[in-house]
Amino acid sequence: MKIKTPKESLTVLTDMVLPGETNSLHNLFGGELLARMDRACSIAAQRHSNRIVVTASVNHVAFNKAVPVGSVLIIESKVSRAFNSSMEVYADVWTEDRESGEKSKVNEGIYTFVAVDLTGSPVKVPVIKPETELEKERFEGALRRKQLSLILSGKMKPEEADELKALFA
Amino acid sequence: MKIKTPKESLTVLTDMVLPGETNSLHNLFGGELLARMDRACSIAAQRHSNRIVVTASVNHVAFNKAVPVGSVLIIESKVSRAFNSSMEVYADVWTEDRESGEKSKVNEGIYTFVAVDLTGSPVKVPVIKPETELEKERFEGALRRKQLSLILSGKMKPEEADELKALFA
Amino acid sequence: MKIKTPKESLTVLTDMVLPGETNSLHNLFGGELLARMDRACSIAAQRHSNRIVVTASVNHVAFNKAVPVGSVLIIESKVSRAFNSSMEVYADVWTEDRESGEKSKVNEGIYTFVAVDLTGSPVKVPVIKPETELEKERFEGALRRKQLSLILSGKMKPEEADELKALFA
Amino acid sequence: MKIKTPKESLTVLTDMVLPGETNSLHNLFGGELLARMDRACSIAAQRHSNRIVVTASVNHVAFNKAVPVGSVLIIESKVSRAFNSSMEVYADVWTEDRESGEKSKVNEGIYTFVAVDLTGSPVKVPVIKPETELEKERFEGALRRKQLSLILSGKMKPEEADELKALFA
Amino acid sequence: MKIKTPKESLTVLTDMVLPGETNSLHNLFGGELLARMDRACSIAAQRHSNRIVVTASVNHVAFNKAVPVGSVLIIESKVSRAFNSSMEVYADVWTEDRESGEKSKVNEGIYTFVAVDLTGSPVKVPVIKPETELEKERFEGALRRKQLSLILSGKMKPEEADELKALFA
Amino acid sequence: MKIKTPKESLTVLTDMVLPGETNSLHNLFGGELLARMDRACSIAAQRHSNRIVVTASVNHVAFNKAVPVGSVLIIESKVSRAFNSSMEVYADVWTEDRESGEKSKVNEGIYTFVAVDLTGSPVKVPVIKPETELEKERFEGALRRKQLSLILSGKMKPEEADELKALFA
Repeated sequence: MKIKTPKESLTVLTDMVLPGETNSLHNLFGGELLARMDRACSIAAQRHSNRIVVTASVNHVAFNKAVPVGSVLIIESKVSRAFNSSMEVYADVWTEDRESGEKSKVNEGIYTFVAVDLTGSPVKVPVIKPETELEKERFEGALRRKQLSLILSGKMKPEEADELKALFA
Repeated sequence: MKIKTPKESLTVLTDMVLPGETNSLHNLFGGELLARMDRACSIAAQRHSNRIVVTASVNHVAFNKAVPVGSVLIIESKVSRAFNSSMEVYADVWTEDRESGEKSKVNEGIYTFVAVDLTGSPVKVPVIKPETELEKERFEGALRRKQLSLILSGKMKPEEADELKALFA
Repeated sequence: MKIKTPKESLTVLTDMVLPGETNSLHNLFGGELLARMDRACSIAAQRHSNRIVVTASVNHVAFNKAVPVGSVLIIESKVSRAFNSSMEVYADVWTEDRESGEKSKVNEGIYTFVAVDLTGSPVKVPVIKPETELEKERFEGALRRKQLSLILSGKMKPEEADELKALFA
Repeated sequence: MKIKTPKESLTVLTDMVLPGETNSLHNLFGGELLARMDRACSIAAQRHSNRIVVTASVNHVAFNKAVPVGSVLIIESKVSRAFNSSMEVYADVWTEDRESGEKSKVNEGIYTFVAVDLTGSPVKVPVIKPETELEKERFEGALRRKQLSLILSGKMKPEEADELKALFA
Repeated sequence: MKIKTPKESLTVLTDMVLPGETNSLHNLFGGELLARMDRACSIAAQRHSNRIVVTASVNHVAFNKAVPVGSVLIIESKVSRAFNSSMEVYADVWTEDRESGEKSKVNEGIYTFVAVDLTGSPVKVPVIKPETELEKERFEGALRRKQLSLILSGKMKPEEADELKALFA
Repeated sequence: MKIKTPKESLTVLTDMVLPGETNSLHNLFGGELLARMDRACSIAAQRHSNRIVVTASVNHVAFNKAVPVGSVLIIESKVSRAFNSSMEVYADVWTEDRESGEKSKVNEGIYTFVAVDLTGSPVKVPVIKPETELEKERFEGALRRKQLSLILSGKMKPEEADELKALFA
């Protein structure tokens, strides 16, 4: 199976924030943003695996800044690490100032997807080889996050999480 | 400020899964579920704080089972722990079998909200006192999850996370 | 066939009112509320019958108070009476004051559903036995409302409506 | 104040039924139809009163036939009677066979609207003068339906409903 | 095959502009209007052909006036000319002043549809015979617009467009 | 005022086609695609002008291939020519094969936007300088299309359209 790079799965979803997608403070509704990030991340996972993918977990999404109605919102997603049949995907989210054109980071999220065949059974995905510094850093962290996720969902005991233990030792 | 119990924030959102809310496998679209959970959790946070609340982060959502079109979906959310101005909220998600009426767990998620005043500045929220075994367990874990979240977003160094270090020691 | 109580079909749909669901006075759009009530009532009917159900009629919905954007809206639906294959379902609708947490009634609606099999043919549903005072009162009135509904849709002549005639005699 | 005819408020809403608007039997979702009827009826009420209108009640909607996905749906609404500040509006709903072009009636509904000024206070609306046989028949029945609605919502006692009593005597 | 008139395909879609359908200037979002026009025009094409129809092209849509939230929007569509298996459809769009009831034109659009059978293959449609002055004028122009459309999409060379050449000679 | 290149306005909107956005043949609904293209093109126009923009016209959209549910849809939009206060924007639309990752062109559209200030009055936009062969070709054609558009909307007489006349001479 071919080795792929994160860049090959890069997905860009640029869209506006319309009034029908806001909360009562006239900012983008959190749930709508989570849904858009899920769409962008699942396309990145599909591009890496060339398979149907289903959302397995949301590992972390931090909302740092409110996104006012009328904003241009840019979601960039890329697979950060591939495991057996699952993939960790990072989404970086920016808005863009209309007058200066400057982008500012509003949000970052980590999702996990599983590649499946037409019957819904998991299938193997290509190995990934990070290239940039940031890609390497996220690749490194992915195993620790996977262990955290397994602990949080009660599928692993803390004492078995070698990668994590090293972090706190 | 009054002490409140998790039960006081309990929010139940029972709804159907219609075709317009599905993915191409005819199951509930992951992003739509994330949005509904965000709505249910934000109401729980508002009920605890009696304030406007904004989504601060999604800490973990695990998708264990697909939810087919036509299902009845039940989301129950409850504040698990209150910090200074932020609240951790748990959402438990079930579907219900039409013929037997039996509920089966499909999903579980943890969100964090911040209570704000009308200018958007954070405000203090009531302390919470867990009652049931499950509430106590989630209350205990909340501090560790908060530290994890701070580490994941680069706002805390692993060596400062005392609660977490104890877990892995 | 088992006898059931109204409580067994109780369905709670708690949700927010977002700007995309309002009319031009910034209150919840009437049609959106009718749709949400239909969803809540159909789940109650399904819970009573353990069958697929289809909306047969809306018998009465009174809009007493406008529901402003940003409100928490609570719909509670319960089967009030079961006939051969049809069920009358009541929906009570409240909003909740954010600061005091007090609920106030905004709306009340009566829907009728028919239970069907997979080919769409009507099937028998369990008998219902009301327990509380309000449940008994609604159970009593259901037959009169059924007669009214038949008269309104031209399927019964006023002189055949014994229950109703008694009311006006 | 000018006297108007029902024809002057006639509103036609012809639209398709897309998959995103269906229930799990692939027919138009009942709640979506209620919302479309509300939109068509409120425009008729606005055309009669030349005022902002708000939904006061749904008096009766009968769902006679399922509307399959892909159908053309035609809603025709017309004010049937004007009271002081409220108006009864009838909606007749048809689908149209693609090949023969024949219309068949699927549904009929009766809504009540109140005309308000910019502060939300009720304002007087023009008197209506029915012209066709059907318009006259609906005009006649409107007072009885208004009394029924008042009785159903507990605002009138059966013994005060003169029009209705005559019907059953 | 029967000859039909434009009037036989007339489709009226009257609807409101709700806040969830606006842009950040609180006017109807351009894309939403394009979608509504597409729905109205495709029904007109279906009524003319009695067949399934698919959008082939949008030939021209001019947005002359903004449509504020709360407006009543009226779309009237009619087939202007039928070719072999394709139909040109005109949509005229108005808003209506609430107080005076006066309609004002906001928009006009020209769409082309192709009639297909259940396998998606194009099928012949009836010939059309315009009746009014405006219908005749639009019928005349349709051939020129078809040639323009073919040139714009690179399927015809300018020198082959006899109708158009005559216009500019 | 600065001279800009088309590349500076490039906007990429990658998204999935979910069942709620399809027509009854289970392909992307034409109106939904028009709306997405409008969103992508208006962002390109805003990026070029650094101003609020409103849709002035849709000049041409050709639907060449149906887009089945579940597809990944990629819209790339770029300003092709700037006039005084208006901008012509091209959108190229592709789907991507899941297994091979190959893109295939499904659609192409030309929209015109006007840059406005906060009061809605038109404002001047930067001049554009095309770089690639395709950008130069589209830049050249823009004046002819503008004349066509003016003729189609009755704002210019054919004999005044010098650019067009040259084409057919």
